[in-house]
Amino acid sequence: MSIEVDYRFPPGIEAQRQAKVIAVGQTAGTWDDRFVHREDSLKRHLAEVVSVETDEQGYSIARVRFPELNVENDIASLLTMIFGKYSLAGAAKVVGVHLPQTYGRMPKVGITGIRERVGVRDRPLIMAIYKPALGLSAEDHAAILEQVADAGLDIIKDDEIMGDLAVAPTLKRLEACRRVLDEVKAKTGRTVLYAVNVTGTADKLIEKARLLVREGANALLLNVLTYGFSVLEALAADPEINVPIFAHPAFAGAMCASADTGLAYSVVLGTLMAHGGADAVLYPAHYGSLPFDLQEEQKIRDNLRSRNVFPVPSAGIHPGIVPKAIADYGKDVILNAGTGIMEHPDGAAAGVRAFFEALERLQNGRSFELETLPAGALRRAIEKWGKL
Amino acid sequence: MSIEVDYRFPPGIEAQRQAKVIAVGQTAGTWDDRFVHREDSLKRHLAEVVSVETDEQGYSIARVRFPELNVENDIASLLTMIFGKYSLAGAAKVVGVHLPQTYGRMPKVGITGIRERVGVRDRPLIMAIYKPALGLSAEDHAAILEQVADAGLDIIKDDEIMGDLAVAPTLKRLEACRRVLDEVKAKTGRTVLYAVNVTGTADKLIEKARLLVREGANALLLNVLTYGFSVLEALAADPEINVPIFAHPAFAGAMCASADTGLAYSVVLGTLMAHGGADAVLYPAHYGSLPFDLQEEQKIRDNLRSRNVFPVPSAGIHPGIVPKAIADYGKDVILNAGTGIMEHPDGAAAGVRAFFEALERLQNGRSFELETLPAGALRRAIEKWGKL
Repeated sequence: MSIEVDYRFPPGIEAQRQAKVIAVGQTAGTWDDRFVHREDSLKRHLAEVVSVETDEQGYSIARVRFPELNVENDIASLLTMIFGKYSLAGAAKVVGVHLPQTYGRMPKVGITGIRERVGVRDRPLIMAIYKPALGLSAEDHAAILEQVADAGLDIIKDDEIMGDLAVAPTLKRLEACRRVLDEVKAKTGRTVLYAVNVTGTADKLIEKARLLVREGANALLLNVLTYGFSVLEALAADPEINVPIFAHPAFAGAMCASADTGLAYSVVLGTLMAHGGADAVLYPAHYGSLPFDLQEEQKIRDNLRSRNVFPVPSAGIHPGIVPKAIADYGKDVILNAGTGIMEHPDGAAAGVRAFFEALERLQNGRSFELETLPAGALRRAIEKWGKL
Repeated sequence: MSIEVDYRFPPGIEAQRQAKVIAVGQTAGTWDDRFVHREDSLKRHLAEVVSVETDEQGYSIARVRFPELNVENDIASLLTMIFGKYSLAGAAKVVGVHLPQTYGRMPKVGITGIRERVGVRDRPLIMAIYKPALGLSAEDHAAILEQVADAGLDIIKDDEIMGDLAVAPTLKRLEACRRVLDEVKAKTGRTVLYAVNVTGTADKLIEKARLLVREGANALLLNVLTYGFSVLEALAADPEINVPIFAHPAFAGAMCASADTGLAYSVVLGTLMAHGGADAVLYPAHYGSLPFDLQEEQKIRDNLRSRNVFPVPSAGIHPGIVPKAIADYGKDVILNAGTGIMEHPDGAAAGVRAFFEALERLQNGRSFELETLPAGALRRAIEKWGKL
């Protein structure tokens, strides 16, 4: 099996020559007469240039095929090989990574497992983010959860910058919120997932994740790009971590926002996350509050779903975008809102209800024009945030 | 204590407004009347804009001061806060990170400890990289080591893409090379360091690092940016890992090569490595084979040395650059060459000798002009690679 990578070079770069530099320089390199006795072995590690195509604007895409035996079936060794030293060499962007189906790992829980756990098979899931992000106590978190869980929320997550801080230590947040989750379960039979942000140096983070799961955490949130893909993979491979891992895109822009360097968002948040073991991946929706390209969003969605990973378009999501989101995604999507739930004019519970009203209204083929909306949570949300 | 971060915005961006977005959006966020009872706590987590300055070209630098209580004294939580979501927001580059001296960790070994271990106090250290990078057996590695160690080399390292591969498993490479290191020690009393590339998913990587040290590894190499700063920090904090950690810059270009997005090389390879616990850090020399900015190189050097971390300018290093390198660095530098040692026309041992001849010639104030050089390794090197 082989690994094929597409590199895009801007006009003025000799793409054929650079592709060859990659194929040799990022693998065995060159050798002289002293290593003739190892020539067969050395050759097996070389990559080869498959194709180079140049478009009308002068951008070239070169495809390079790497031997799988150079890497360790993980994302970190893959990145080191395909774009380690070469990332420092000049203008080139990794716009596609084509891996064997067996490369890396599949999600342990994924779309089907998350649906089973929350007991919802036939509609999009609704997810909220605790806001304000920092400064509330563990009990404040529990109080918020009580409101949104009662209103029918499926999943809640910490803000990505909420670490293990004195103001609300991770285990205390879990304990306080776990009581609410248990009450909801007892009262309604519903399982609500709380993705707890797991942080720390790699060894401590893995230990903490195991402790959180033992203490009742039913989902985890990981900032994969600031902690490292190797940490995601360790959690994904760990039999004790039998809960879904939600991957957050924090820091993705540092490696993806540039036109001519770094990697495409669809590679990092799509392909690599999907082969790294994430169960659900957050990323910006193209009509949200962050600038994002529609095609990249579609590729992420498709890359994730092809491996049973839940797509979670985020950032600036509110009830008014439901028709657009469902047109783009159908039902296998998690709609994730922070302020779009928490800052509903009538409170967070109304924020959740507004999403469900929107789903129902859409199901029934009804209009979202403001004047057609009955009084209630959805109308109030659309008065505040508008609709797409 | 506080953390100050400099963001550079290109012309056309409202820097004052964006700095405020960062100060609020990357910390507590906004809140409404429902959280008045937590106002004091929430305010303590907010960042503030310290200054915004715009130059004649229209580039602005905004300094934002973050409370240290928002983060966990590590690099991953720091990156999530200062550039997590905001990295996806548009054109902005992190060009400076100013941390309290106590933030993160100091190297366990560092410049002074590496000098003690190799027993060299008063000159630059000479380091080689195994080449070809992939495809040689463990015994091939030992044979190469024998040549270069006999010639007086101080340190050798794996190529960064050499993982734990069937062709030469990591432990086998160590075992084969360890025998050579022991022989050199017995024969000459000299300690030669071999920085073994440590790889794998985070949990396995940390276990492997401990095993390697137990089996006699006297240095480690880590691709910090593909495996994660949280892995570097775990190794650095581990009392069993009592050997220097050499940090490799593979993948740095993915987050640093863009003019207007990502982070400056001096932040990632200087400040963050120096507070993350690396003992020595590799990065491109500005006159080497990779494009690199002189000022960024100087900042990296100074950021590293300010915390006793060894600077290792690399890529395209050969004996002819010694006068330039020593003018830039003085003696506290590790000169690291791959092909510049391994592909010396008279073999790798001659490559090492050429570096020592160059150091001695420089010490004695002699010319490096080809016609003035006596026959020998240095002359042969400069015939092949020239001089600066």
